[in-house]
Amino acid sequence: MIYFDNGATSYPKPVNVLSNTVNALKNYSFNSGRGGYAASVHTAEKIYSVREKIGAMFGFEPQNIAFTMNCTQAVNMAIKGSVKPGDHVIISALEHNAVWRVVNHLKNDGIIQFDVADYSFDAAETALNFERLIRKNTSLIVCMAASNVFGVVFPIEKIGEIAKQHNIRFIVDAAQGAGVIPIDAKKNHIDILCAPGHKCLFGNMGTGFIAVKEGTYLNTLIDGGTGSESTNPNQPDFFPDRLEAGTLNNSGILSLGAGIDFINSKGMEHIYQHELAVTDCLFNGLSKNSDAVLYCPKPEKNKSVPIISFNYKDYSSEKTAALLAEHNIAVRAGLHCSPLAHRFFNTLERGTVRLCPSIFTTRRDCEFFLKSLKKI
Amino acid sequence: MIYFDNGATSYPKPVNVLSNTVNALKNYSFNSGRGGYAASVHTAEKIYSVREKIGAMFGFEPQNIAFTMNCTQAVNMAIKGSVKPGDHVIISALEHNAVWRVVNHLKNDGIIQFDVADYSFDAAETALNFERLIRKNTSLIVCMAASNVFGVVFPIEKIGEIAKQHNIRFIVDAAQGAGVIPIDAKKNHIDILCAPGHKCLFGNMGTGFIAVKEGTYLNTLIDGGTGSESTNPNQPDFFPDRLEAGTLNNSGILSLGAGIDFINSKGMEHIYQHELAVTDCLFNGLSKNSDAVLYCPKPEKNKSVPIISFNYKDYSSEKTAALLAEHNIAVRAGLHCSPLAHRFFNTLERGTVRLCPSIFTTRRDCEFFLKSLKKI
Repeated sequence: MIYFDNGATSYPKPVNVLSNTVNALKNYSFNSGRGGYAASVHTAEKIYSVREKIGAMFGFEPQNIAFTMNCTQAVNMAIKGSVKPGDHVIISALEHNAVWRVVNHLKNDGIIQFDVADYSFDAAETALNFERLIRKNTSLIVCMAASNVFGVVFPIEKIGEIAKQHNIRFIVDAAQGAGVIPIDAKKNHIDILCAPGHKCLFGNMGTGFIAVKEGTYLNTLIDGGTGSESTNPNQPDFFPDRLEAGTLNNSGILSLGAGIDFINSKGMEHIYQHELAVTDCLFNGLSKNSDAVLYCPKPEKNKSVPIISFNYKDYSSEKTAALLAEHNIAVRAGLHCSPLAHRFFNTLERGTVRLCPSIFTTRRDCEFFLKSLKKI
Repeated sequence: MIYFDNGATSYPKPVNVLSNTVNALKNYSFNSGRGGYAASVHTAEKIYSVREKIGAMFGFEPQNIAFTMNCTQAVNMAIKGSVKPGDHVIISALEHNAVWRVVNHLKNDGIIQFDVADYSFDAAETALNFERLIRKNTSLIVCMAASNVFGVVFPIEKIGEIAKQHNIRFIVDAAQGAGVIPIDAKKNHIDILCAPGHKCLFGNMGTGFIAVKEGTYLNTLIDGGTGSESTNPNQPDFFPDRLEAGTLNNSGILSLGAGIDFINSKGMEHIYQHELAVTDCLFNGLSKNSDAVLYCPKPEKNKSVPIISFNYKDYSSEKTAALLAEHNIAVRAGLHCSPLAHRFFNTLERGTVRLCPSIFTTRRDCEFFLKSLKKI
């Protein structure tokens, strides 16, 4: 199988991810921080080491990293934990349903109002689009690091600056950026970062995290046992316990740590360069195929993540994907859970075929895809 | 290590759990139901087969099983998704913080009032204790299947009958019962069942589920992409999509399926009998040790799950656990995230040392523990 669905979940994983997972299942599958026996203590140390790795990569204190089942859960905890009745929220025009459905739910419940800031290929214009929507009661800006459909990168630093100037909390959904493009909470003025562990960070499915700037107050979405302050009827005030109720996915968390080790050993910049190169190869090939319609700009460093959206002939996106599947090529078709983005790019009716290569994608894979496409 | 912390998470797991996990990581780690390529379709079939196994074990429709990170998340989804402002809720006196902190949060927010029904060793009395607290606005009863501290089983069927008679929704937190004692949603009148996958169901950590009776309405706690009805700004109405936003923990879910296969192959009754026998061995040994104080009744079929709580000499529970750890015996000490239960059993100040054997615990393990205890 030639796999271009890394935007959903990365495959294959680096070899150290599987070995670390198996090791975790055998040796670190104990309740960390709750037991006093050696295996529990060693497990807690291992889990903490992954907080350190994430903290170092994204500019957070290790204890302010809380693990979740996926990025969606983290985004829900971040947004729902941040707003109060009467607040106004701004989101981008390309947000995933993990954000759009959340703010819709809060709006339907009469808690918030929200506005949608247009995207522009001009970074300053995009940032201005957010600033123009700010009201007196705007308490929150939520923006993705990069579009999961069109691959365009948001000017997070500029949007973060605006948020900071106006004393507005800034949440970044890095579902498609974390592990590929540099994201730094301090430099980009990010208050809360949400990310999946199983996409560009190469951990197993079932992993994600929410990272919180020191001093950020969050109401809790999920309450329960933390092994700390057990007689307290409320969640503890301190992180990560405040955001981590119940048993963690230890093997998943340690797989995520192994994924970060892989990125650090290869170099994020090197991985990004490779992925941009193969994305460029796909883009160029599609550009030369008169039956293909491309919806994203030519891949460019710091402006794109390795994602391409296109359609073919007069086929529905699903038909193109099904025909490619017959050539053993895995792509995803449809709306990619992002109707807002498709509305903005005028592809809502048809959806798109999405190509997401990874560090493991070769030029040969790209050429095979381009040749196969001509046969469908 | 002699492991008596199965109440936190079971260890070791059956051998087929690891092999199925590795197989899942290699072959079924694709986004199920979102992609049209063969690997995605096969993954979706595998995930569905686990819904079928859970549904068959507990009496739910397969599509009404939604996967979560742990039981705590499921309990939060169940309770928070069930109540509306002005509701009254009844919980048991032995509830875990996964329930107690949730209802406290809702009470603090001015949404609900709640009362606590006393436990009694007499099943009819326990059920009556719930019934006595019912008010006109009681909309919900939440009760555990069995205490995670004292091992006593609740008369779920009787409480469920009362709930049904009064048209009150009934949620069961089966953190300590699922996989050991028979739980049947229809027979026990359960509307929503919450359970961990990694305890007595033998799956990996990072797994749990919420199972919902057909026709039960639940507001959503977590919103996001489902791969279905993507242009709908709200979560879909149908299960499991309504309760499953974002990427699932595929390898965890398939490990849970393998755990259920193990239980079905051994027979739940056989497993329960073995666990009761070793628990009885521990209980008898502790009864004969005049330095030990036992807090739970003698293990008895249908009245106990394999959990014992005790203290030793004038030691703190933590000291006893630490001294046992020197003998390579893993137990858990303290409050076990259940201050309510300790208040009820008058052990709040000291906590207890908890012993939770499993199908893999031998009489020799028990004898080693009893001998080691005399040396501390």
